Amino acid sequence: MNNIYAELISIGDEILYGQTLDTNSHFISAELDKLGIRVKRKVTVSDEREAMMRAFEEAENNADIIIITGGLGPTKDDLTKPLLAEYFDSSMILHEDILEDLRERFAKRDRELNELNRGQAELPEKCTPIENKYGTAPGMWFDKEGKVFISMPGVPSEMKYMMEDTVIPRFKEKFKTPVLIHKMVKTVGIPESILAEKLEDWENNLPSEIKLAYLPGLKQVKMRLTASGDEEKRLKKLIDQEVDKLYKLVGKYIYGTDENNLASKIGELLLERKLTIAVAESCTGGHLAHLLTSNAGSSAYYRGGINPYHNNLKMDVLGVKKETIEKYGAVSEQTVIEMAERVRELFGADIGISTSGVAGPGGGSKEKPVGTVWVALADGKETQTKLYHFQFDRHGNIEMTSNSLLNLVRQTLSSK
Amino acid sequence: MNNIYAELISIGDEILYGQTLDTNSHFISAELDKLGIRVKRKVTVSDEREAMMRAFEEAENNADIIIITGGLGPTKDDLTKPLLAEYFDSSMILHEDILEDLRERFAKRDRELNELNRGQAELPEKCTPIENKYGTAPGMWFDKEGKVFISMPGVPSEMKYMMEDTVIPRFKEKFKTPVLIHKMVKTVGIPESILAEKLEDWENNLPSEIKLAYLPGLKQVKMRLTASGDEEKRLKKLIDQEVDKLYKLVGKYIYGTDENNLASKIGELLLERKLTIAVAESCTGGHLAHLLTSNAGSSAYYRGGINPYHNNLKMDVLGVKKETIEKYGAVSEQTVIEMAERVRELFGADIGISTSGVAGPGGGSKEKPVGTVWVALADGKETQTKLYHFQFDRHGNIEMTSNSLLNLVRQTLSSK
Repeated sequence: MNNIYAELISIGDEILYGQTLDTNSHFISAELDKLGIRVKRKVTVSDEREAMMRAFEEAENNADIIIITGGLGPTKDDLTKPLLAEYFDSSMILHEDILEDLRERFAKRDRELNELNRGQAELPEKCTPIENKYGTAPGMWFDKEGKVFISMPGVPSEMKYMMEDTVIPRFKEKFKTPVLIHKMVKTVGIPESILAEKLEDWENNLPSEIKLAYLPGLKQVKMRLTASGDEEKRLKKLIDQEVDKLYKLVGKYIYGTDENNLASKIGELLLERKLTIAVAESCTGGHLAHLLTSNAGSSAYYRGGINPYHNNLKMDVLGVKKETIEKYGAVSEQTVIEMAERVRELFGADIGISTSGVAGPGGGSKEKPVGTVWVALADGKETQTKLYHFQFDRHGNIEMTSNSLLNLVRQTLSSK
Repeated sequence: MNNIYAELISIGDEILYGQTLDTNSHFISAELDKLGIRVKRKVTVSDEREAMMRAFEEAENNADIIIITGGLGPTKDDLTKPLLAEYFDSSMILHEDILEDLRERFAKRDRELNELNRGQAELPEKCTPIENKYGTAPGMWFDKEGKVFISMPGVPSEMKYMMEDTVIPRFKEKFKTPVLIHKMVKTVGIPESILAEKLEDWENNLPSEIKLAYLPGLKQVKMRLTASGDEEKRLKKLIDQEVDKLYKLVGKYIYGTDENNLASKIGELLLERKLTIAVAESCTGGHLAHLLTSNAGSSAYYRGGINPYHNNLKMDVLGVKKETIEKYGAVSEQTVIEMAERVRELFGADIGISTSGVAGPGGGSKEKPVGTVWVALADGKETQTKLYHFQFDRHGNIEMTSNSLLNLVRQTLSSK
């Protein structure tokens, strides 16, 4: 079987100017990967005729599938539709059914179509429209000598709907691809170079069908194993064997694989042990709660959280002693201990965790500079604490605090 | 003055496979834009010799500045350093000072250098090393016939440090660029096509130096005005005049400009009016608190938040009446009213806000399907409520709930 290659083109000065983060091509990449379609290259170009036409041409030379996002809005700065019409030498036609559908949807919201909206029902004759349930710009599908061009809006929810409702199902019918299997093995608390040193012999003896990559992040290093070929069953077995070896070599640092994140792993451990958790967070201000509740089904083990930003609330609502805060300060071991123990009791949870620190950019002092963070974990028997000195910006310090405390929770639960 | 053009190259299969979101090129774009350097194109290629060498060559033909991120780790899958040595036909030399620095930093953490770490002190002879305070791989700066190649690690914190500490200061010295001024005007609660219709006459009469773009998002539409030329003062005045006109035409939808986000705008309004806010969130599970506390200085107006996931906590800790939850359910107008009023009192804030809904994917019913969300705002005089029916995934529903409620807070504060 031949490989099927794709190239992604994102259109928009806002991406090149650093005003919009391109999450679309990230989403599309992951979806194509699941189908065994290989994204060979991604290109972002500006909303300019020449740059866009050149990108269309280069992509057609490089790939079988070309997916374009952006530049489909109703306004004058949106060039994708007229340029694709030019590229495919196609006149425009009005789609009455699309116009009628737009009119109905607008009527439901007590709005009337204006000239700009009406123009959105006009499309190049040579394309098949792709339905857009969440917006007014239809997508476009062009076939050209076995190659496919897809154009979708840049608004993420509209693009996602088109991918899931139309593009992916049609790709599944149209393209038969070789097997491509990834396994992501996720570690926390060990630096990349030490991990690589521990795994040197193993890496040198990997079967030739398997490729390895190290992906380092904030306190975490992920390892990606990729196998490709024709025999799915054999490749899966090969990968599983190598993952088993990894667990034997560095198992204590591995918190999960594939879709697991630290918070979902903790969810699994809590469910297995029939335990619940509650959170009292000061410097992380809701971030830990947000991570823990981002996973579906979290209500089974997450009791709730409180972020008492003001010291009065740490005392009046959460019940930290006034003397503790006056004597040691809000950012102190004593305060996080009481926060973790009180939230555990108050929220009726088995485990209480807490954070207090200086996230920055303001609020630092000589004794407690920006990045100083205390965390605690109370399980009713003992209360553990940790002190960190992070050196990131406000967002980085908040994220490192959350990841570090979640790792402490993971280690504690794993040993129970 | 001539324009200075840049091209960004991100290296890594993990980006093409959709496993890692490329935030590096976003950050670099924004920094170059501030310097008046125009990013013409961004390309992401795989960790493969041929793709990388071709990207280096194309970028050298297209741009004055080529910035490469990724592929600099100590492990075998990292190819950027050997390939740049080959591209510049340069042998490798050991930098004793870098090695010594690595040794010292490792000693502080009671670790010894291994072979992989030692290799990181070897660099192509033709490059100037760029210091990496947060990691072990130095960056590289190559000069070639007036053009500049920069190579930095893919770990965001390491790349950011190099940009801020070395790259940006040197670019400021080396490149003189024409003036490029952006102004972002941010609206909420009005669809793009209606906004464009209201602004049609204004847009047709924009001065020729100013370019307009509409950037739609979740419940928000941003408008970017860009002016370029030589006379900074005149261009700034031109842009200011057009922004004034925008406020006259669609001012009630505009919540801010440039760096403002909805939460920071609310922070400003609260500070001006000397008011404080507290949050009781169920379905948003900490996300609203996280948004409000992500902005520096938020402790001046943010009292705190609670996310009582379990109904018992809504009653026992927050004080929602048992009868209310039993009669109307947790996702109801009556419950969010009590949540907003109780958190306002309990946390001693001027304004209390609350959310309760079905974020999904589970938990929906016929009467209250996934996406059903109630929010409330209590200010001590009256309590407003809103009901929404969102149709996004769990993350989208959480984000839309937060943005919608923040807009209600903005509107309420603006009328005070």
